[in-house]
Amino acid sequence: MTGLGSGLRGEHFVAGRAERGTGEVFAAGDPHSGQALEPQYAEASADQIDRACAAAEAAKLPFLATEPALRAKLLRTIADGLVALGDELVQRVMAETALPQARVLNERGRTCNQLQQFAALLEDGSWVDARIDHADGKRPGLPKPDLRRMLQALGPVAVFGASNFPLAYSVAGGDTASALAAGCPVVCKGHPAHPGTSELVGRVITEAVRTLGLPAGTFSLVHGRSEATGGRLVLNPAIAAVGFTGSHRGGRALMDLAAGRPEPIPVFAEMGSVNPVFVLPRALQARGVQIAEQLAGSATLAQGQFCTSPGMVLWPAGEGAEAFANKLRDKLAAASAGPAVHATIRSGYERTLDELKQLPVTVAATGSGASADASAVCPMLLSATAAAVLENPRLRTEIYGPAVLAVPGGSRDELLAIARSLHGHLTATVHGDGDDFVEFAELLTVLRSKVGRLIANGVPTGVEVCPSMVHGGPYPAATDARFSAVGATAILRWVRPVCWQDWPHDLLPAELRDDNPRGIRRMVDGVVA
Amino acid sequence: MTGLGSGLRGEHFVAGRAERGTGEVFAAGDPHSGQALEPQYAEASADQIDRACAAAEAAKLPFLATEPALRAKLLRTIADGLVALGDELVQRVMAETALPQARVLNERGRTCNQLQQFAALLEDGSWVDARIDHADGKRPGLPKPDLRRMLQALGPVAVFGASNFPLAYSVAGGDTASALAAGCPVVCKGHPAHPGTSELVGRVITEAVRTLGLPAGTFSLVHGRSEATGGRLVLNPAIAAVGFTGSHRGGRALMDLAAGRPEPIPVFAEMGSVNPVFVLPRALQARGVQIAEQLAGSATLAQGQFCTSPGMVLWPAGEGAEAFANKLRDKLAAASAGPAVHATIRSGYERTLDELKQLPVTVAATGSGASADASAVCPMLLSATAAAVLENPRLRTEIYGPAVLAVPGGSRDELLAIARSLHGHLTATVHGDGDDFVEFAELLTVLRSKVGRLIANGVPTGVEVCPSMVHGGPYPAATDARFSAVGATAILRWVRPVCWQDWPHDLLPAELRDDNPRGIRRMVDGVVA
Repeated sequence: MTGLGSGLRGEHFVAGRAERGTGEVFAAGDPHSGQALEPQYAEASADQIDRACAAAEAAKLPFLATEPALRAKLLRTIADGLVALGDELVQRVMAETALPQARVLNERGRTCNQLQQFAALLEDGSWVDARIDHADGKRPGLPKPDLRRMLQALGPVAVFGASNFPLAYSVAGGDTASALAAGCPVVCKGHPAHPGTSELVGRVITEAVRTLGLPAGTFSLVHGRSEATGGRLVLNPAIAAVGFTGSHRGGRALMDLAAGRPEPIPVFAEMGSVNPVFVLPRALQARGVQIAEQLAGSATLAQGQFCTSPGMVLWPAGEGAEAFANKLRDKLAAASAGPAVHATIRSGYERTLDELKQLPVTVAATGSGASADASAVCPMLLSATAAAVLENPRLRTEIYGPAVLAVPGGSRDELLAIARSLHGHLTATVHGDGDDFVEFAELLTVLRSKVGRLIANGVPTGVEVCPSMVHGGPYPAATDARFSAVGATAILRWVRPVCWQDWPHDLLPAELRDDNPRGIRRMVDGVVA
Repeated sequence: MTGLGSGLRGEHFVAGRAERGTGEVFAAGDPHSGQALEPQYAEASADQIDRACAAAEAAKLPFLATEPALRAKLLRTIADGLVALGDELVQRVMAETALPQARVLNERGRTCNQLQQFAALLEDGSWVDARIDHADGKRPGLPKPDLRRMLQALGPVAVFGASNFPLAYSVAGGDTASALAAGCPVVCKGHPAHPGTSELVGRVITEAVRTLGLPAGTFSLVHGRSEATGGRLVLNPAIAAVGFTGSHRGGRALMDLAAGRPEPIPVFAEMGSVNPVFVLPRALQARGVQIAEQLAGSATLAQGQFCTSPGMVLWPAGEGAEAFANKLRDKLAAASAGPAVHATIRSGYERTLDELKQLPVTVAATGSGASADASAVCPMLLSATAAAVLENPRLRTEIYGPAVLAVPGGSRDELLAIARSLHGHLTATVHGDGDDFVEFAELLTVLRSKVGRLIANGVPTGVEVCPSMVHGGPYPAATDARFSAVGATAILRWVRPVCWQDWPHDLLPAELRDDNPRGIRRMVDGVVA
């Protein structure tokens, strides 16, 4: 590191300048001890947010016009910078989130991989979906003009860091990587549960922007935990789009703010999901025990803090049902309590469980051990009948944490009715063998209309970063089902098509010139080559 | 025609059933005489709207799962049906809109062309953007699953017919064609200015749906002129998306309703535009007179009722400026008043002009002739200084009708400042020769960030229907700049990606099977072929 150096100083980065906030002071809490972690962070001032946005606006046109190779270099430089932080970053993430080292290293790898995948997308260049329709001056009636279009950055994107992925969906996470790749400046609000992690990562991005000579407003990071801070960012006229991962309440609030602006802007908020799992009769009979083991592992992984954590499992009566139920119960009972990434997750989890216990729900198993951790959440297996689930919409909503709602003994019609009653979710999983898929064909068709990703005979956790991934889904899984937060297509959230008609050839973007200097795939007169 | 027959009976079509409304009665008005045209139409009842939506919901999954070839046949059958209506349709459009026969025939051709282009898109099949990432069970760490994704219909789309394109952006227009192509049922609210045209076209679609054995809820048409009718449609939980072309007030109202739903839905509203035209010094000098002639023709075409009608023209002082101004004034003065498509356009136009006259604006020319037509609008050339345009935001908003605001004598910096002050528009046009494009490079960069389509040395009217067209733009040109209302990509408004993970191969949609039975272009393991 050069320039700004490393180490924690409680700093925001406003368009290249490290500075402290001026508002109320807060600090990260150690999820184990509950003790505050140094240093303190002061809430961003209105002036800081406005300056960050004004600088992003000033960077909008120059950054949009940068060579894709330069933006690819920016992403690779950020990835290198994250790795170069070495143990300092890893230790700070662990301290702020209580995530174990293996997971943090894995997540850092994933974060770098995302940055590198978007760099590769830029280097390939075809993602701009260039289309050329040549003129036909001799067309009878009206001569046909020369028309060429490609995708172009929307402008400054406000990114809200997520608590559950302090690296992969936070300051240099998927939203930032895809927005910078698209050519959009980013103003990031770090999640207040891991401000130290955010500061370290924000400094890496700030340094990378400076080193590559990009406009200072290309990136800013502000800290804050008040709703007013996030709201002021979303309402700033310079902001052209918003990326968010978190709670339904938070995502919807940002969406409502954005929709109410004089100039409304798109918000992509990924707001979690129940991720229902259906175990069909033949699979239940043949390998129910194995499925129960796999499922319990998936549901308690990282204390159930994945957006794709399976929160509901449904299976019919019949052979294998009891063994499945027993194994699921035993595995959840044997699973240990452990710390959530911050203490408010524990309080939210306990509040949700208390609410559910007012409904026709029984507790089938409670995880082992009273953890001494301040933010400890304890695995839980709840149980309800299919009829109860149909009658109580609350039972079909997310329990954020390591809880699973078991719905045993439903008939084929009940399972189908529950599927029909579901709101949008990120995923649905079906365990089936052979004719299960024939007998439950209608269930599969219904699920196809409810989720972004359908999984057969697996677990919903583990979101592969690749071109065919879809991480999103009908509301309330996400605010706009037409986009994905993960994978190459995530860049499409931040771009719009622009068309040039009869434009002087040498003034066209390189992607649209006849000689195709970037060698990208294009549709020319209807033919893709 | 068979079955429902043709002829006008004041009917709505609710999921295949012809029926009359039960609300307040209205009729189309002859734009020439102001007289009501037979028959009368009764506003759709709440029950009719709800039944149309319920039927669309019931049709959602079966229609989503139809073979693309069947949907292509539906579109071609509708196109054939429109032509088969022959003179009955053409005469009714003319009677309701006062558009001349040549224009109506041309618009009918365009409407059929759109339907056929979407049919061809379905027959080609590659539009679904299929992506396959094969499994890698041997990957170190975590085995990689098999992931496949493609685009899938969102569900029922509410389409609002536009007044200015009674065929091409109304009942069987671009929104309906693209939604049906995507596999989305359509509930259309016809524009109350041309209910007879809507009835004729709605009957053709209803017959086509029936003849092809598609679910009855695939298409419904309701008539209405109250805001409550449109609002009830948008708020129905079955509706998954909205397509609208019309005023800013109307589009924004629908967008606000949709954003406030418990489950918000996307609205694509195309709300018009000023379509500024910049004439740069060398072009002004070399061919100003010719540009003025071309521009006056474009601005008065169809009484200025195109979304892309040029509403503002800016040019610097210097050689050719006076000749340009004179020619523009003479052409507008010589242009005739004529009927708008309905009487409220006249009142809106006159109200807007009255408002503008309160601002520092002069009337440079008034079109010729007091037209006897009830809905007559008269061409107008207004003039304001660059300083006035910068000071008065109202001067930078649309005047719907055959008026042009001339902004002569602006300096290079003033032109640039005005460009920077613009909100989003559908198009911007630049007339330039040689070094004009060098001298005004910054202007071009700014305009690129303001509009959906940039035109050099042409006119903005005339929207080619082709893959590279963009008809949309930053707000308020459209509610979501990421999509286009015209061209093949218009289908992307109504679809979302769905991903299948480790799914049984024979249960995958044909587009995602290894043997590629549809022979479509796909990205397989990162390679497009």
